[in-house]
Amino acid sequence: MIRLNAFDMATPGHIHHGLWTHPRDQSARYASMEHWLSLARLLERGLFDGLFLADVLGAYDVHGGSAAAAIRHGVQIPNLDPSVIVPAMAAVTNHLGFGVTANLSFEAPWLFARRMSSLDHLTGGRIGWNIVTGYLDSAARGMGMDAQAAHDDRYALAEEYAQLCYRLWEESWAGDAVVEDRARGVFAEASRVRAIRHAGERLRLDGVHLCAASPQRTPVLYQAGASARGIAFATRHAECVFLNGGAPARVAAQVKALREQAAPRPIRVFVGASLVLGRTSREAEDLLEEYRRHASAEGALAHASASLGVDFSRFDLDEPITAESNAIQSNLAALRGPDGSTPTKRRLLDLFVLGARQVPWVGDASTLAERMIAYAAETGCDGFNLARTVVPECLEAAVDLLVPALQERGAFKRAYAPGTYREKLFGAPLLAAPHPAAAVRR
Amino acid sequence: MIRLNAFDMATPGHIHHGLWTHPRDQSARYASMEHWLSLARLLERGLFDGLFLADVLGAYDVHGGSAAAAIRHGVQIPNLDPSVIVPAMAAVTNHLGFGVTANLSFEAPWLFARRMSSLDHLTGGRIGWNIVTGYLDSAARGMGMDAQAAHDDRYALAEEYAQLCYRLWEESWAGDAVVEDRARGVFAEASRVRAIRHAGERLRLDGVHLCAASPQRTPVLYQAGASARGIAFATRHAECVFLNGGAPARVAAQVKALREQAAPRPIRVFVGASLVLGRTSREAEDLLEEYRRHASAEGALAHASASLGVDFSRFDLDEPITAESNAIQSNLAALRGPDGSTPTKRRLLDLFVLGARQVPWVGDASTLAERMIAYAAETGCDGFNLARTVVPECLEAAVDLLVPALQERGAFKRAYAPGTYREKLFGAPLLAAPHPAAAVRR
Repeated sequence: MIRLNAFDMATPGHIHHGLWTHPRDQSARYASMEHWLSLARLLERGLFDGLFLADVLGAYDVHGGSAAAAIRHGVQIPNLDPSVIVPAMAAVTNHLGFGVTANLSFEAPWLFARRMSSLDHLTGGRIGWNIVTGYLDSAARGMGMDAQAAHDDRYALAEEYAQLCYRLWEESWAGDAVVEDRARGVFAEASRVRAIRHAGERLRLDGVHLCAASPQRTPVLYQAGASARGIAFATRHAECVFLNGGAPARVAAQVKALREQAAPRPIRVFVGASLVLGRTSREAEDLLEEYRRHASAEGALAHASASLGVDFSRFDLDEPITAESNAIQSNLAALRGPDGSTPTKRRLLDLFVLGARQVPWVGDASTLAERMIAYAAETGCDGFNLARTVVPECLEAAVDLLVPALQERGAFKRAYAPGTYREKLFGAPLLAAPHPAAAVRR
Repeated sequence: MIRLNAFDMATPGHIHHGLWTHPRDQSARYASMEHWLSLARLLERGLFDGLFLADVLGAYDVHGGSAAAAIRHGVQIPNLDPSVIVPAMAAVTNHLGFGVTANLSFEAPWLFARRMSSLDHLTGGRIGWNIVTGYLDSAARGMGMDAQAAHDDRYALAEEYAQLCYRLWEESWAGDAVVEDRARGVFAEASRVRAIRHAGERLRLDGVHLCAASPQRTPVLYQAGASARGIAFATRHAECVFLNGGAPARVAAQVKALREQAAPRPIRVFVGASLVLGRTSREAEDLLEEYRRHASAEGALAHASASLGVDFSRFDLDEPITAESNAIQSNLAALRGPDGSTPTKRRLLDLFVLGARQVPWVGDASTLAERMIAYAAETGCDGFNLARTVVPECLEAAVDLLVPALQERGAFKRAYAPGTYREKLFGAPLLAAPHPAAAVRR
């Protein structure tokens, strides 16, 4: 069975840059209530497991040394805090889960844990947390610091931060603390509520969690780190992992490695995909051509410059791109030609299709359903994260064309399973051993 | 014309403690989506201007030296982050405004300003900010500090914090920065977006605001400080001020002083009130007696102990209450008898009616409508903040009985004015000079 998430962000340009200029595209309505309510209703009609909301703190200011190109093309700026749009969408849906990206580098665990518990309570247990640590110096400067922490330091913080959140979510309020005993006048048994005291290397906290135990306690945990340290973190903490997609053999190896490292904990793996779906293959190809005319090379370069830490505005098309840091070297390696040739800006631009390096899957519903089923079988992934191209038509096509095609092939559910987000994904309401959150639960 | 706000908090016990045990009370559903959606629809049906949501970081742990009594009686703990329930209520209403209490002591302005702008965008300009600085050591400990900052230091921080937020909200993105020009492929004119650079005594920031200009830019500003420093802050920054209520002559003097200090800026003043409304006076008196049987003295003492910084569990009923700090002395002064007699725990408990020192207004709708009209005339206040007693019946009575009685007397609107929260309150969408936010607007 294949699972589908929508992958979106409250901003004009998320992954495929420039498509907001398409006459039918509604990405520019990213700040409108009705835009998000419609989207949530659509996804629930399509039995999507979740809507995964990306988030970035900071402006992409590497390209040309300023944020001008990112601002001009709406490349993830301006944006809205995803935790604000989730409750509105939850108000008009009953089953859809919500993956909220939140950067742990800049907020005290006590306040962050409260907001996540509040979301989990209010949505009846439909919240996930995509754990990120940020990678932009512009975020650190917005927070009044000089620069971001180093990569490995951020993961050390993430480890301490996650552990502390587990204690707030799982240990502070026992599941039976709230008794609501009107006759005795006891709302909660104080003996079942415990202050969490922590004085660690990077974090301090002394207090009770402000929220009682929420339906899921710890939200469903997502992670997407690709570095060795990121994979180690993911296999220790994450319940769901996102991969970028690509050649099935490579993805299959990644899935296998993740599952082996996480064992005996199960991990669900979602692969990023962008679909261009038509009622016929010809219609899909025509749509792709139509969309391509709106893709923005400058928007894409503004995004890639920040992601790779390379100012592409300084390069001629065929000038070899070199960089100093190891992190950047590893990113650039992905840009080498199949023959191992030196990365260039021309090569990078060749890889852009719809304003991103993510190559779309193009075809009619039967073709794509069969490709997805084969890809899932070959890679062992659990499903796909569908990035938006032109909205809402790309998601309408997924709901109205792709989902029925998957259902006809017995590869997609016909109704939601009952329960919380975690119950729908894993069949159990709470994290189980050997996950570290289970170890601190009372 | 009288304006009404509901005053509530996402917690079992807000002001009137113990009433959650009443068989018809639904306060224990504070974490339920449907509870808040129903409340929002009810208030909009009653043409309320806003729902004002209180918030407290920290547990009330002065009484008996622990948070046990507060937890037992649900005294403002457990709770939910108010910014999370607002978007859900906004999804099912069109006019209702939302006053969100947020403590500025513990969150970076860059992130806080983004969340408020996100709320203002999503709700179409229906957001207010109740500016608080906190007063609990337990909050500081939750944040990993040893103790809260001193009172005047907190106001100095508030001044710098508010100014910095104004720059993010009003200066960073010009109102015309977002052009959405599909033909030119320009979402926003980068030349109309400016990084805010600030290196002050308490705060640093260097970055563009992450959100484009929202409908109100700066949310409607509320404040409730009663100290000299608090009043100075309110008359410089606040658009709406809350007063506790009480003897009309005293409130009239407070209103006059506030207006004189704020002039020429208008200030709207709302007075806290708890109504016990019946179809007849007799029914109201019966309701009051019924409610009183559910009031919790221990819950009230747990709240008062934290508010006054005095552990009432240590006092015999008639032992004089004394305390060291000036702040506490000034609070205790309010507990002296009309004859100036020494404050005692007995005197404090005598002042509790429904689990709080706020004395309810009891009667049928005609009587209370006329009392409210007279009170508003006498004090010069603009309206009332109605605290919950037994919910939802206390607010249903206000909507179904009181509002029509006020309307019959020409003292309450018959339809919402158009526009944002600020337009409904003041007739103009943006803050005007001499407010400091107007001075930084581009």
